[in-house]
Amino acid sequence: MAAVVATPVGAARVQLARPAARSSVRAQAAVKLEAPNYVGKDEVPSTLLRPGIDDPESMRGKFERMIRDVQNKVCSAIEEVDGTSFRQDAWIRPSGGGGITRVLQEGNVWEKAGVAVSVVYGSMPAESYRVAIGKDVPFEKDDRVPFFAAGVSSVMHPWNPHCPTMHFNYRYFETEDWKGIPGQWWFGGGTDITPCYLNEEDMKHFHGTYKAVCDRHDAAWYNKFKLNCDDYFMIPHRGETRGMGGIFFDDLNDRDKDAIFAFSSDCANNIVESYVPIIKEHKNDPYAPRQKEWQQVRRGRYVEFNLVYDRGTIFGLKTGGRIESILMSMPLTASWRYDYQVDPQGPEQKFLDAVRNPREQRWV
Amino acid sequence: MAAVVATPVGAARVQLARPAARSSVRAQAAVKLEAPNYVGKDEVPSTLLRPGIDDPESMRGKFERMIRDVQNKVCSAIEEVDGTSFRQDAWIRPSGGGGITRVLQEGNVWEKAGVAVSVVYGSMPAESYRVAIGKDVPFEKDDRVPFFAAGVSSVMHPWNPHCPTMHFNYRYFETEDWKGIPGQWWFGGGTDITPCYLNEEDMKHFHGTYKAVCDRHDAAWYNKFKLNCDDYFMIPHRGETRGMGGIFFDDLNDRDKDAIFAFSSDCANNIVESYVPIIKEHKNDPYAPRQKEWQQVRRGRYVEFNLVYDRGTIFGLKTGGRIESILMSMPLTASWRYDYQVDPQGPEQKFLDAVRNPREQRWV
Repeated sequence: MAAVVATPVGAARVQLARPAARSSVRAQAAVKLEAPNYVGKDEVPSTLLRPGIDDPESMRGKFERMIRDVQNKVCSAIEEVDGTSFRQDAWIRPSGGGGITRVLQEGNVWEKAGVAVSVVYGSMPAESYRVAIGKDVPFEKDDRVPFFAAGVSSVMHPWNPHCPTMHFNYRYFETEDWKGIPGQWWFGGGTDITPCYLNEEDMKHFHGTYKAVCDRHDAAWYNKFKLNCDDYFMIPHRGETRGMGGIFFDDLNDRDKDAIFAFSSDCANNIVESYVPIIKEHKNDPYAPRQKEWQQVRRGRYVEFNLVYDRGTIFGLKTGGRIESILMSMPLTASWRYDYQVDPQGPEQKFLDAVRNPREQRWV
Repeated sequence: MAAVVATPVGAARVQLARPAARSSVRAQAAVKLEAPNYVGKDEVPSTLLRPGIDDPESMRGKFERMIRDVQNKVCSAIEEVDGTSFRQDAWIRPSGGGGITRVLQEGNVWEKAGVAVSVVYGSMPAESYRVAIGKDVPFEKDDRVPFFAAGVSSVMHPWNPHCPTMHFNYRYFETEDWKGIPGQWWFGGGTDITPCYLNEEDMKHFHGTYKAVCDRHDAAWYNKFKLNCDDYFMIPHRGETRGMGGIFFDDLNDRDKDAIFAFSSDCANNIVESYVPIIKEHKNDPYAPRQKEWQQVRRGRYVEFNLVYDRGTIFGLKTGGRIESILMSMPLTASWRYDYQVDPQGPEQKFLDAVRNPREQRWV
């Protein structure tokens, strides 16, 4: 009700079309998740798979090991630079699955950094599944299709306005065999960077790292996934992207499962290399109060993207996920200044020009 | 992508049912608005109605005069307490309508206060209109029904954690005669208060003011509109309301149009009386850094509500409204602290208990 425009017949009833890049409706699922039990920081099980049910040598097992290993590696690298430690919270669901959330808050270099792993078992309505796979399967009204989903995700917000925020997410999803249809599976993920000043060397390093990763697996992927990323992180109401992109892929299942797993692992294992050298370079850069103010305004844009458009965040908020884990992505601080103006000749304007024309930013 | 839960088949495709209180689908309209021209601060026309087309003595004219008068009165009262002035921006649309946004930022008492008026002409798809009025009208595929909407809205965020944030919005909507169906009309609005500490005297004053207003028009309205307000400002993912409520009504057209206009005017003309005495009482209250931190965390909740659930904000962002006017409601500063804990015996916990049980808060 805060909007300046009086809304016709109550705006809740005005269902607006999503932008084209977000319009896929393969699974309009009302997903059901069982409530988690919180087990605290020290009682983390060695696997979040269901003992005696899930095969540790299956993709479920391999993916869980990969993301937990990545969580450890990334947290260690961040702790080494920051000089403080992550705290850890874990939870499990009685019927299987759970998560491990690690957060470092008010450190020396980062105001907030979180790395979370989750393994989830759930079920989706058969109707949603049918739409998702594009096959006309007959089903009963209350039929639900069991699924498994696992992922690692992270957002890191440094204090220094010359140090970029970084986000990554790598996930694997599969459904079980159902009504004679074999289980379906997809990989998704990406790493992207959100500075508030443009440093070409940093961008070449970050994008170059991911171009090299992509090129090891498919020569077409870097360009494709870079464009995906520009599209995904668009904030339509601002006409700008959240940051300077990176790579983003979803629903990837166009080749052998192990080949895509190898790609996903390669991406996840290059997070530290793509990001930490940039932070080491800039963590002690001097800055003026006005630059900190600009960072806070950009943090506000980050919040706008995450709360208005980010699929994962909105999905988590509306399905009853663990709120503290979902919103660990939010910055410690953000600011909204009315009609904020920047010097048209200054570096803030240069940054705005870049986020308003993401496709023109070809770093590698 | 920031969520900890890996999402099945891409969460964008997972369309979740809205909570019941927000599920009305009377007008799932893709509303079309013409782009505005910005006319600056000094060129505000004496009316935003279409000269020679709209009758100044119609409800359109009466409502515009009322909301512009309220904007003046509220801004004057706030300026008197704050000791600084609002800036003004105005825009018009070439085919009629426009808006006047006034913002006071980094004042002495308020970190950010905005009061905006808008008058909008647009058209909605006939299908949406048919659903809205619940009548089976035959229509052609591209038929659109012209509408008029006008409103005043405001959010004010003070610096002092003992001074509440206040929000109000009063609006009038009508469609034109179409396919033999007479024009439809509705009023909506409300005033609500968001402290971060509970002060019973303040709440009795605020709610008491609005109970007295309601009672002058319909003895059933205060209770009804107080409950509406509790429902509307719920943040489902937090299990708490944004603040301590107030009154909220929508689609009000159950009696004579002038009677509802009188009620709406009475509400809008009691904004200053309901709020300003509370600010005068507390603007110099001492506070500790920890109390400011708590205020910032609550500001984060305010942002969550506005960006994830608020109909007006989401409608504005997705229809191409003037972003700076829509997001003037955002606080100057907000904070997200991971797993923030409060003293279970302290006033922050008392506040949380209240926002988690809004219906038990009976102030008058």
